[in-house]
Amino acid sequence: MATGAAQTLLGELADIGRDPRSGGYRRHAWDDADMQLREWFVGAAQARGLQTDEDGNGNLFARWTPGPGGSGDDAVLIGSHLDSVPDGGAFDGPLGVVSSFAAIDRLRAEGFAPARPVVVACFADEEGARFGIACAGSQLATGALDADRALGLRDVDGQTLAEVMTARGRDPGAVGPTDLTRTVSTFVELHVEQGRSLVHSGDAVGVATAIWPHGRWRLDFCGAADHAGATEMADRRDPMTTYAAAVLAARRLATEHGARATFGRLSVEPGATNAIPSRVRAWLDARAADEPTLQRLVDSLVTDARRTGAEDGTEVVLTTESQSPAVTFDGPLRERLAGLLDAPVLPTAAGHDAGVLAPHVPTAMLFVRNPTGVSHSPAEHADAADCTAGVAALTDVVRDLAGGPT
Amino acid sequence: MATGAAQTLLGELADIGRDPRSGGYRRHAWDDADMQLREWFVGAAQARGLQTDEDGNGNLFARWTPGPGGSGDDAVLIGSHLDSVPDGGAFDGPLGVVSSFAAIDRLRAEGFAPARPVVVACFADEEGARFGIACAGSQLATGALDADRALGLRDVDGQTLAEVMTARGRDPGAVGPTDLTRTVSTFVELHVEQGRSLVHSGDAVGVATAIWPHGRWRLDFCGAADHAGATEMADRRDPMTTYAAAVLAARRLATEHGARATFGRLSVEPGATNAIPSRVRAWLDARAADEPTLQRLVDSLVTDARRTGAEDGTEVVLTTESQSPAVTFDGPLRERLAGLLDAPVLPTAAGHDAGVLAPHVPTAMLFVRNPTGVSHSPAEHADAADCTAGVAALTDVVRDLAGGPT
Repeated sequence: MATGAAQTLLGELADIGRDPRSGGYRRHAWDDADMQLREWFVGAAQARGLQTDEDGNGNLFARWTPGPGGSGDDAVLIGSHLDSVPDGGAFDGPLGVVSSFAAIDRLRAEGFAPARPVVVACFADEEGARFGIACAGSQLATGALDADRALGLRDVDGQTLAEVMTARGRDPGAVGPTDLTRTVSTFVELHVEQGRSLVHSGDAVGVATAIWPHGRWRLDFCGAADHAGATEMADRRDPMTTYAAAVLAARRLATEHGARATFGRLSVEPGATNAIPSRVRAWLDARAADEPTLQRLVDSLVTDARRTGAEDGTEVVLTTESQSPAVTFDGPLRERLAGLLDAPVLPTAAGHDAGVLAPHVPTAMLFVRNPTGVSHSPAEHADAADCTAGVAALTDVVRDLAGGPT
Repeated sequence: MATGAAQTLLGELADIGRDPRSGGYRRHAWDDADMQLREWFVGAAQARGLQTDEDGNGNLFARWTPGPGGSGDDAVLIGSHLDSVPDGGAFDGPLGVVSSFAAIDRLRAEGFAPARPVVVACFADEEGARFGIACAGSQLATGALDADRALGLRDVDGQTLAEVMTARGRDPGAVGPTDLTRTVSTFVELHVEQGRSLVHSGDAVGVATAIWPHGRWRLDFCGAADHAGATEMADRRDPMTTYAAAVLAARRLATEHGARATFGRLSVEPGATNAIPSRVRAWLDARAADEPTLQRLVDSLVTDARRTGAEDGTEVVLTTESQSPAVTFDGPLRERLAGLLDAPVLPTAAGHDAGVLAPHVPTAMLFVRNPTGVSHSPAEHADAADCTAGVAALTDVVRDLAGGPT
């Protein structure tokens, strides 16, 4: 079960939610693919005799309970998520879940008896692709996201999270904080690297130092619809031109601040070839090494867009959809894992459930090398040998953390 | 039946396909609203004892056949269309159809006996909002649009026109050229003005001189999807930045050429807030006073976009979706109507079914004043008195054209 175990398990998921045209995955909170992945998770847990549990937020847990000699709480939590961005890759999320099951298989094969529970998590809606807020499941469980706000979020079809959960047989009244962080002593999330630091250092596995602060902002560029042919250029109040200037300003400002800014999603109203838009609604993803820099970046971008809007006869309305502070992972835990694995340490600009749990429990992340650094794309990849090295590293970490009093 | 007849008839359509949120109309080829409008047209024709007919392309005709003393061919064709752009106004299209019925009512009330048939047309899919090609119905009937090409066009849900027509009980095999232009002596399309020339001249009704050449081009900006947080700005191949530069270049070039260029519709793949797009597909609507100017505008825009794309690591693929040559309406007919109505003459940058029929039969257009000039928007408007003036003008025109040998 050792070599290629992660690949074998990923293979079981290969067809779920895959778009045959793009080759990418579309696995979004509570959609058909997500429901299949949930069934797969429960089945994989049951096949291993693990006790499964779903909290009120849709987060799934598979628990390996210690024998008579072990403690019943202070669990070592491992795992990640199974949902994807639209046209996402096969590794972002699933690699952490399948590696967790594979690590348990290895530990059992070697006769290891944990002194505390080892729990595999599958967090709900990590990518936020459907309702717009990333890490919704872990944020709800830890109280970082208000339940009423989350339940009122709407997908592109206008359905609320409450409606969608009800349709899937879940009780919206059960959404909210849980005792997760009180029953867990440590969380270790294994994840494919979304960058090339490990390629440069020549290592298969690394340990995370920190997550950059990041957020999502919605910008509504509002103008006036009119006929695309009959309206003179000088008479227009076209929000598309204001948006276009903002896209170029975002690139310039992010470069100046050593930060990241992306417009990857937008909607245009009315959306006709022969009509000047009345509104362009665009979502900004921005990240920086520290919070003041991130705030300066967003402030400068909005000021710049409003100045352009004044020239274009358009308005720019800003809505902060989510904002995640900088996360520095637990220092002693990071040093312990880096020493144990003889692995390099590296920061990341990507958000993770580990970042949500880090303020509450000692948390660490293991990254597995990604040859191209590409993620959130069908081109995302990790070599088989590196996936196996990731399973071995996670096995070592769980053996170390669950083996006795820390 | 005289005063306010057009308003009364428009009132019968007021609720069909109206979006309660925007107040605009969504009446797209063969959708539920379009089917209701077709039923309304047939009902209005039958209520007047007019003979109705639908050609293989979905174009509807209501025929007032002359009495025993009149001729059976060389019809005077009037009418327009009932479909809309997304969130369109109430007048673009429907004003021409309801004014045609109202004009027939007036002529009958005064005891007029036509010497040749008077036919009210409702052309299918004038706006091209669903399948991307404007004036599809009239273009198919005149042979300007190839039937096989049209039948293979897909809507946003991936359905072909052939599938959609079949689902509505139509035979795709019947799509193609008809004898329309051989049975018609003249076509006069009444339309709300999409501009403010009549506001400036102080007239309720005007006569068209020409339609600017115009077209729709699809630009596919192709880059590489990647993680919005983890990918450094310098490492990106983000097609959104190339698109943004093209939007600003389009405005600059259109202004320089005294022309029009608009990006009003686009789609982004994968369309996630936290993913750099792999592709931005955008549609350009461009128009100019003459064909060489229009060609220079589009050529310059694409050259500029490809140069930017080379810097951004992206590619720009151009597809011409439709291109309509300049139309100069029949001179003698225009002079006859302008003299009859004592009305000013004016050009338009908007496309119309009249532009499609003009190369085949003497064709004219009557414009009704639009106080703001706004069109393709819920704000589109024509005052009641001006609508009545439009009906009176169309009545005079039909009396003149259908009254005896020309």
